[in-house]
Amino acid sequence: VKPRVTIAPHVADWARDAIIGGGGEVVDADDHPDGLIWAQLRAAAQLRDFLGTHPDIGWVQLPFAGVEDVVAEGLIDHRRQWTSAKGAYAEPVAEHALMLALACLRRLTRRARASTWGEPAGETLYDQPVTIVGAGGITSSLLSLLLPFRAPVTVVRQHPEPVAGAVRTLGVDQLHEGLRGARVVVLALALTPKTRGLISGDELRTMGPESYLVNVGRGALVDTDALVTALTSNTIAGAALDVTDPEPLPTGHALWALDNCLITPHTADTEEMIWPLLARRVRENVRRMAAGEALEGLVDPDLGY
Amino acid sequence: VKPRVTIAPHVADWARDAIIGGGGEVVDADDHPDGLIWAQLRAAAQLRDFLGTHPDIGWVQLPFAGVEDVVAEGLIDHRRQWTSAKGAYAEPVAEHALMLALACLRRLTRRARASTWGEPAGETLYDQPVTIVGAGGITSSLLSLLLPFRAPVTVVRQHPEPVAGAVRTLGVDQLHEGLRGARVVVLALALTPKTRGLISGDELRTMGPESYLVNVGRGALVDTDALVTALTSNTIAGAALDVTDPEPLPTGHALWALDNCLITPHTADTEEMIWPLLARRVRENVRRMAAGEALEGLVDPDLGY
Repeated sequence: VKPRVTIAPHVADWARDAIIGGGGEVVDADDHPDGLIWAQLRAAAQLRDFLGTHPDIGWVQLPFAGVEDVVAEGLIDHRRQWTSAKGAYAEPVAEHALMLALACLRRLTRRARASTWGEPAGETLYDQPVTIVGAGGITSSLLSLLLPFRAPVTVVRQHPEPVAGAVRTLGVDQLHEGLRGARVVVLALALTPKTRGLISGDELRTMGPESYLVNVGRGALVDTDALVTALTSNTIAGAALDVTDPEPLPTGHALWALDNCLITPHTADTEEMIWPLLARRVRENVRRMAAGEALEGLVDPDLGY
Repeated sequence: VKPRVTIAPHVADWARDAIIGGGGEVVDADDHPDGLIWAQLRAAAQLRDFLGTHPDIGWVQLPFAGVEDVVAEGLIDHRRQWTSAKGAYAEPVAEHALMLALACLRRLTRRARASTWGEPAGETLYDQPVTIVGAGGITSSLLSLLLPFRAPVTVVRQHPEPVAGAVRTLGVDQLHEGLRGARVVVLALALTPKTRGLISGDELRTMGPESYLVNVGRGALVDTDALVTALTSNTIAGAALDVTDPEPLPTGHALWALDNCLITPHTADTEEMIWPLLARRVRENVRRMAAGEALEGLVDPDLGY
């Protein structure tokens, strides 16, 4: 069977090539497609309208890894198959997380802002304990990047099934045990009602004054006010954030002025990086659909990711 | 035989422990020691005076990896054995080089200086061609760190004996071939009369507008004025320097103001990082001396490193 797939809200060459490359056929939205490639970032309301007028589409491929906006629109249910980009962008995001961790340890915010030579400062990542919260593709790629640093890695996840390459895997109910003694804590998990505000005052105090927080997940995993307090009072050593709450972080926000904080504007995976990786996911899923295999990146409507 | 080793210009506990741990004996400077552990950074003139009054010392262990200041004092000859820390600090320096490369690709100087959200920008290091000039310990450690990024690495070195892990090894006479097409060029070689000014206007033009320069070797490997011109005119995309010429870089120097340049004040290996690593080198060399084996980190008086 040749899967009949449409592309919306606008045709994209990479998607067309990927559908054909996976053994599918590109069809018009009104021509009863089996699947939809949604080729637009941050447009959940527009997607809701599209599916309202094309209700018989059985599979939707989303272009983002975190699907909380689509969940909030009430779209994700068991009526159709939903696949996200989860895992597909893991490598550039893990790379960004490693850079942010190194930038924290080596005081890069201060150095980038300096206009004079300074005193030596900085710590190495070699042999340092690292804790990663979340156990998806980013964690798996980050474990590979950390391997040559001999960093003993603790993974904290929903269900404490051991993660290959980690020295220990803890359940999320043991979060504080995972945070204690970590030199760097990396947040690489989905935002759900359960994980919102996961890192607040108590968790930051458990991390302690020699510990750095790196967030490449979602801004609202962290209580921003608590983080500002912790950074100002040196409750933790520093933070590096690719995602913030609110996002975009408003001009004039207290975090911008802190020299133990580094902010990148949600650029762990830029569009230049993601389209080729998404094309791979689309091609593979079209191939799997043709072969009757389970799709890659399936969203669980009950878990919300 | 128990090597009799002294420590100067002042006794350091780590050196004492390392000498004893290696099977040696700590003796007074006036008690005809076999070897000297020089436990002071940047004090070549003081070392010259010390050796003037203790001429029969047969082995000197230096605490730095780059020995050009001691060479300039005319101290390094075939009369005694000289060992440096070369290779011993490779890991933290390679780590710093990786961080600087990632910081270039992801525009960290601009982001650290920003006080508003910005447009997405940045490139990944995955699968990008990297050229490392130099083939010592830093290069070897950096190759390990680059392995999970699948970066095809070219090594340029004095004698083009192939380096394990590099996709090609070129002689220094093929420098331009090594620079062409590299996304990141890392300088990790010794400063000698031959390598001074190795990277000047021609080399920067060969690198081109999509290429970044990372220097963790010595500042004078690069013609600073040519670098300022190249960064100002976007002849290359950017630079990250842990070493500068002059060093320290004076307040008000043009490099401080450029937002495609990142400067760290020679902190790839801070003292906190190096003393434990140097202790390992001392312990090993005392052990080798006792066993009659060749010392580690031997300086070649003819090459000057």
